[in-house]
Amino acid sequence: MKFEQPVALKEIARLINARLVGNTEAYATGINEIHMVEEGDLVFVDHPKYYETCIKSAASFIIINKETDFPEGKALLVTDEPFEAYLKIVEQYRPFKPSMDLVAASAVVGEGSVVMPNVYLGNNVVIGKNCVIYPNVTILDHCVIGDYVIIQSGTVIGGDAFYYNKKTNREIHYKKMTSCGRVVIKDFVEIGAGCTIDRGVTGDTVIGEGTKIDNQVHIGHDTVVGRNCLFAAQVGIAGAVVIEDEVILWGQVGISKTLTIGKGAVINAQSGVPSSLDGGKIYFGTPALEARTKVKELAWIKRIPEMWDKLKALSSGTVNEK
Amino acid sequence: MKFEQPVALKEIARLINARLVGNTEAYATGINEIHMVEEGDLVFVDHPKYYETCIKSAASFIIINKETDFPEGKALLVTDEPFEAYLKIVEQYRPFKPSMDLVAASAVVGEGSVVMPNVYLGNNVVIGKNCVIYPNVTILDHCVIGDYVIIQSGTVIGGDAFYYNKKTNREIHYKKMTSCGRVVIKDFVEIGAGCTIDRGVTGDTVIGEGTKIDNQVHIGHDTVVGRNCLFAAQVGIAGAVVIEDEVILWGQVGISKTLTIGKGAVINAQSGVPSSLDGGKIYFGTPALEARTKVKELAWIKRIPEMWDKLKALSSGTVNEK
Amino acid sequence: MKFEQPVALKEIARLINARLVGNTEAYATGINEIHMVEEGDLVFVDHPKYYETCIKSAASFIIINKETDFPEGKALLVTDEPFEAYLKIVEQYRPFKPSMDLVAASAVVGEGSVVMPNVYLGNNVVIGKNCVIYPNVTILDHCVIGDYVIIQSGTVIGGDAFYYNKKTNREIHYKKMTSCGRVVIKDFVEIGAGCTIDRGVTGDTVIGEGTKIDNQVHIGHDTVVGRNCLFAAQVGIAGAVVIEDEVILWGQVGISKTLTIGKGAVINAQSGVPSSLDGGKIYFGTPALEARTKVKELAWIKRIPEMWDKLKALSSGTVNEK
Repeated sequence: MKFEQPVALKEIARLINARLVGNTEAYATGINEIHMVEEGDLVFVDHPKYYETCIKSAASFIIINKETDFPEGKALLVTDEPFEAYLKIVEQYRPFKPSMDLVAASAVVGEGSVVMPNVYLGNNVVIGKNCVIYPNVTILDHCVIGDYVIIQSGTVIGGDAFYYNKKTNREIHYKKMTSCGRVVIKDFVEIGAGCTIDRGVTGDTVIGEGTKIDNQVHIGHDTVVGRNCLFAAQVGIAGAVVIEDEVILWGQVGISKTLTIGKGAVINAQSGVPSSLDGGKIYFGTPALEARTKVKELAWIKRIPEMWDKLKALSSGTVNEK
Repeated sequence: MKFEQPVALKEIARLINARLVGNTEAYATGINEIHMVEEGDLVFVDHPKYYETCIKSAASFIIINKETDFPEGKALLVTDEPFEAYLKIVEQYRPFKPSMDLVAASAVVGEGSVVMPNVYLGNNVVIGKNCVIYPNVTILDHCVIGDYVIIQSGTVIGGDAFYYNKKTNREIHYKKMTSCGRVVIKDFVEIGAGCTIDRGVTGDTVIGEGTKIDNQVHIGHDTVVGRNCLFAAQVGIAGAVVIEDEVILWGQVGISKTLTIGKGAVINAQSGVPSSLDGGKIYFGTPALEARTKVKELAWIKRIPEMWDKLKALSSGTVNEK
Repeated sequence: MKFEQPVALKEIARLINARLVGNTEAYATGINEIHMVEEGDLVFVDHPKYYETCIKSAASFIIINKETDFPEGKALLVTDEPFEAYLKIVEQYRPFKPSMDLVAASAVVGEGSVVMPNVYLGNNVVIGKNCVIYPNVTILDHCVIGDYVIIQSGTVIGGDAFYYNKKTNREIHYKKMTSCGRVVIKDFVEIGAGCTIDRGVTGDTVIGEGTKIDNQVHIGHDTVVGRNCLFAAQVGIAGAVVIEDEVILWGQVGISKTLTIGKGAVINAQSGVPSSLDGGKIYFGTPALEARTKVKELAWIKRIPEMWDKLKALSSGTVNEK
């Protein structure tokens, strides 16, 4: 997320009780996870394994639990608990102040759009022109909906990321990393009933122009979906996935986190995708293979009994000349 | 869908700017997709591959993009864009006029039925006697619910069909085909929480008497489910499927579109069904096979290492006499 | 369920028109299914196969359709239709009296908790301290939510069990067994959007402390989930399952009814679990196997063509010496 206006590093260091090293006079423009950082951003890290990635990333300022070398012009904010620091910063600069109205005063609905009864629109929600938002839809704070978008009943846009900091030495192992990102839905997108599209942790979950989504589809935090995609019912896409343009996912397909599915890929129903897939091909199975490979595999499996018979014949000396 | 009263073909031809050929004095009683047409109906077709099916169907009047031979007594409405013509006709004769009340003035609720808080009932919804509709249920325009029906919270009845006209030469590839059909739920049906049952595109999606549906089940447009079926949680059924009486689908089963599942079939959990299945049998797997076949297949797979060992022995000249 | 105060067996026998045999002067403290019974409870049984289990169970009083031997101190309530008797008792002692307010007068919300717009809280619902209940959540009668619990939009807590008495000689084969149990959510639990957690039939569905649940997860009646579990999106867990502490279920996993999943088990995405699993291991596949076994199996399947070639070579007398 970006701050409403740049914030002095010294102010942030004081807030999170960190020792400031390096470019102490700088101003931060926002705070983001390592996958989402831009110049001017803060990033946070508590594991030596990720120190270098964070220090060399686009982020200008690193909240870290150990002083380390870093490039000229950047700064470290050294504190024992970088994740706690992240939570404090979000709490301070994007506090949770839920609107208790069905349509928040700060929500904007464009001309020609129909918002039906029992729809919740949170703070700073923007809905474009000529949309239809069906009853019992929930659109949470800061989400942005384009023009000519249809969202059917029961769908939830902008739920929190399923994103936790795990430490088994705490009584409660998982600690929620507050989401401060958004969902951005582009023009001509249609979303079915009973879907859930989570906000980014610090960045945006994006659904590209003209993409059509059937009922009961789940899309995780920070996932970016391209243009003119088609997702059938009960598809599940985990967090931080990239789905390129014109991808078709048939019913009940599951996609694991942080993958890329290439342009125009078609994934048949119920497939499970554990790794990135090239575009322009048809896939099937769990784990998903190219459909023609999978079809051959299924045919081979059916021939096992025949192979067994051949083996028996060979073992007994009767060579099967078939 | 049927028109409220028969409409002169000439009026329709004028509306959609079509050239009228044949029985020009006739009246149309409704408009339907090819799977749903009856005598007196209009049908629409833009691909030569389907011309003959449409012209020979029960439909009396064909909206088509090329003049073709047709039987005596029928009529053609020739226009470049039959799908656009369909959309215009629906817009004219069943316009989208969403009720902005939680319970539409035209909705009817039968004696003894309980409609709990935050339920949305759209225009012309009919609810029978002695039903319970739990909080946060959405029932959209024209849907019909029988007697002694229970619908649990969060469920959406009558969402739009996931049904698009695709042309990749448009910037937005998929164009929504407006749904004007209904959902019809028969007596003694029970529907769990978080389910979605889509309306027919032009016809009815039907759930037969006494069928019981668990939570988070999706049922697509125009699907017709028989009597006394049982669907466990997270089952997904695509569009235009026929499920005969007494079918049991266990959890997370997926059924592809336009199939028929025969009476009394039982499909085990997580199975994926790509083609029609005979009744009276038990199925399992993706693609679903008869369960006993699938069980044997799984057993054969486990014997591959043993076969490998036999092969090695044979290759090295040591015949395994086991 | 427990009665508000103990009820004389004679009063119950009169209500259900049963013949009372044995300890006729006793008082019952509640009525429960066989899996849930405690001393002082009534239980009900109509099939000789389960007579002995019920009579020897912790239950003190047995509603049964045939007089049978039973231990000293217990009592039988003999009636033709024990399931009907169950329904009558629930109707009498825990009648369905739905609150027609969004927040029932008897619902209690603890200090520091935020209940957002359009949330339904049923009769006797208890919400602890410092919770956030997002818009369009439904929490039905008698459910109990701990402290620091987050429940996201569209989720339904306390829907009825998917639990029927089946008799194919009735026109309507399935007859609902009224649920009178609860859902109990412990402290620090977080539940995503669009989830459904059903109440126990007569007992409690429980989610243990610190467990985190992603979107569109279904949890069936009477299932008991331990502490610090993690369930990813679209997981489905059937009824009466025991999930021990620290279990991780990845996306779209399905668990069949009445199983036990041992402490610390990890089940990979899309796996289907038909039988209980030991703790401390990683599983994958449908049916789920230990992941390393499944990985080997997949590798063996890929070697079938190679085996076929070897077999062909052997059959033709050309021994492959590879």
